Amino acid sequence: MLTFVLIHGSWHDGSAWNPVALHLQSLGHQVFTPTMVGHGKGVEKAGVTHARCTASIVDYIVKKDLDNFVLVGHSFGGTIVCKMAEFMPERIRRMVFWNAFVLKDGNSLNDECPPHYRDLFDRVVLDSPDYTVMLPFSIWKDAFINDADPQLAKAAYDTLSAEPYMPFQEKLDLKRFYSLEIPRSYLNCMQDIALPPGEWGWHPRMSSRLGSFRLVEMPGSHEVLFTNPRGLAQKLIEGGRD
Amino acid sequence: MLTFVLIHGSWHDGSAWNPVALHLQSLGHQVFTPTMVGHGKGVEKAGVTHARCTASIVDYIVKKDLDNFVLVGHSFGGTIVCKMAEFMPERIRRMVFWNAFVLKDGNSLNDECPPHYRDLFDRVVLDSPDYTVMLPFSIWKDAFINDADPQLAKAAYDTLSAEPYMPFQEKLDLKRFYSLEIPRSYLNCMQDIALPPGEWGWHPRMSSRLGSFRLVEMPGSHEVLFTNPRGLAQKLIEGGRD
Amino acid sequence: MLTFVLIHGSWHDGSAWNPVALHLQSLGHQVFTPTMVGHGKGVEKAGVTHARCTASIVDYIVKKDLDNFVLVGHSFGGTIVCKMAEFMPERIRRMVFWNAFVLKDGNSLNDECPPHYRDLFDRVVLDSPDYTVMLPFSIWKDAFINDADPQLAKAAYDTLSAEPYMPFQEKLDLKRFYSLEIPRSYLNCMQDIALPPGEWGWHPRMSSRLGSFRLVEMPGSHEVLFTNPRGLAQKLIEGGRD
Repeated sequence: MLTFVLIHGSWHDGSAWNPVALHLQSLGHQVFTPTMVGHGKGVEKAGVTHARCTASIVDYIVKKDLDNFVLVGHSFGGTIVCKMAEFMPERIRRMVFWNAFVLKDGNSLNDECPPHYRDLFDRVVLDSPDYTVMLPFSIWKDAFINDADPQLAKAAYDTLSAEPYMPFQEKLDLKRFYSLEIPRSYLNCMQDIALPPGEWGWHPRMSSRLGSFRLVEMPGSHEVLFTNPRGLAQKLIEGGRD
Repeated sequence: MLTFVLIHGSWHDGSAWNPVALHLQSLGHQVFTPTMVGHGKGVEKAGVTHARCTASIVDYIVKKDLDNFVLVGHSFGGTIVCKMAEFMPERIRRMVFWNAFVLKDGNSLNDECPPHYRDLFDRVVLDSPDYTVMLPFSIWKDAFINDADPQLAKAAYDTLSAEPYMPFQEKLDLKRFYSLEIPRSYLNCMQDIALPPGEWGWHPRMSSRLGSFRLVEMPGSHEVLFTNPRGLAQKLIEGGRD
Repeated sequence: MLTFVLIHGSWHDGSAWNPVALHLQSLGHQVFTPTMVGHGKGVEKAGVTHARCTASIVDYIVKKDLDNFVLVGHSFGGTIVCKMAEFMPERIRRMVFWNAFVLKDGNSLNDECPPHYRDLFDRVVLDSPDYTVMLPFSIWKDAFINDADPQLAKAAYDTLSAEPYMPFQEKLDLKRFYSLEIPRSYLNCMQDIALPPGEWGWHPRMSSRLGSFRLVEMPGSHEVLFTNPRGLAQKLIEGGRD
């Protein structure tokens, strides 16, 4: 049996993993789903940096004294798990990147996004009182949760909250991460077009940066944690096992 | 419940959709499957242009006074639905491109085909009495309907008819189409090699031109309307819903 | 009913096909699974060349007087079936390349491998008493048999044996192969990362060299002959039929 630490992506908080966590627990695994600082509804978001996001999760791990766990990062969460690995490599049994950013050393998340996303967020943030960006519903429905019916797309959207924008813009030093030899997997959802397939796509663009890695794939969108939590749980196990 | 207008591709006519239409109707949807001028067996094919193909379908829509429909284009039919959208954008609820051509403004279909196809058709048309091209059975069997057993491949081939060649060669002005904001989806059959995967492939080459779009994928060849009509109907709904 | 000749890849011998052969036979097909010279456990491996590998299989075919068969090559076996086709084109009904090398004329297998594999093998062979290379278990587990649980990954690894290295390095004249018109199929396992997806991937890089070919795909890794022999048998039939 494994211990999973599941790190959410942008606009999400830890509770988005609840249905996945249930399936993993029912199969006997331990699951932890921390929420990064500045994420979720009703919390202060101004001034949140990438370093503070990472630190809030590292603090959670240390306080709970978690060890020998499978560390899963989804989407933006990929940038967090890379920094976590730099701080506590000896605690991590394996890393699983689920349609996650694996930034080149020195890049920001925005550096790895297609121009139309950057332009959109640069515009949207100007109207924000707390330097956050929200994802428009039309993009959510067609590019993020394209395998949901309209009811589910709406219900899942209602759980999202505005995302602090600075962590998208900050350039990350990942030299230490790229020197680590923690085993790693990439889980690719085959209809995920949150990043457009091809030149800007998740796989193999991001996955190939992991060097030697295990590939796991499944059908579905960027948001199978809503549309197919049971299938996602199964694939996290296939990605996370030794 | 949705209204579907299904636009066939080259060598096909509207009756090729019949099994798909049955499945859609059995689920409560309305379905229309017009045949373009110059398509089908036993009709005059000489002198058929792209504009006449489009006009014959526009005329059908207007006479039936169809409105608020999901407009599906398959293969060559993608070039027709783009022009239709220019003429009647307000009638279209959503466009679904199923392994369909989405031409760059100013290109012909031939401009977007690999050289071996163009060369083949340029040769074949010279032997034709009415400036049409037929698809050789060997290409049909291995590159178009590669998921059929030999009996089905043959039976389906027998329903095809020669294709007017001018519409492949005519360059299309699509500036208006590219200015429209009709919601759109791309349905990609994952073993479709009617266009060879990679540099000349359907997806993401064609799909990425749609800007913001919904991606839907399914297993199968370019001709799942013959090999898996029920599965295709399901995916047309996933692509066509709001 | 078809006759199959199944040609194994590197580190394998003919017995690796046994579970697949059983499924094919239970469906009424004839199956032959020869082992190349220098392959398998407990045999002399020093001095084995690509030409000797091919000759050992050609000899097998001639002695058994096999004819009108579907010739399947897996991985390195792709290079063998291309040379076999040059020597006995009239005996082959169809070729099926299953995640197999289709070398450019004049290339060696190493020429078509990503640098990190070449570097690894160049290092490993120096420690070998008989100029062979073994595949490290960590690469086997994550990049070759990534769809197996740890027990199956280990059990399958124990059936492997060291691979003569010269056949990876020898440049092959394939002009005659590329002039042949034997019908051909490419079977691609969709999670096969034995060659990393993208620039160095199997499909469409290798498959596109076949000219007109039938594409068949299935889920799974480079080693579905261990993880899903029944599914592989089904897909070999879809690839092998007329």
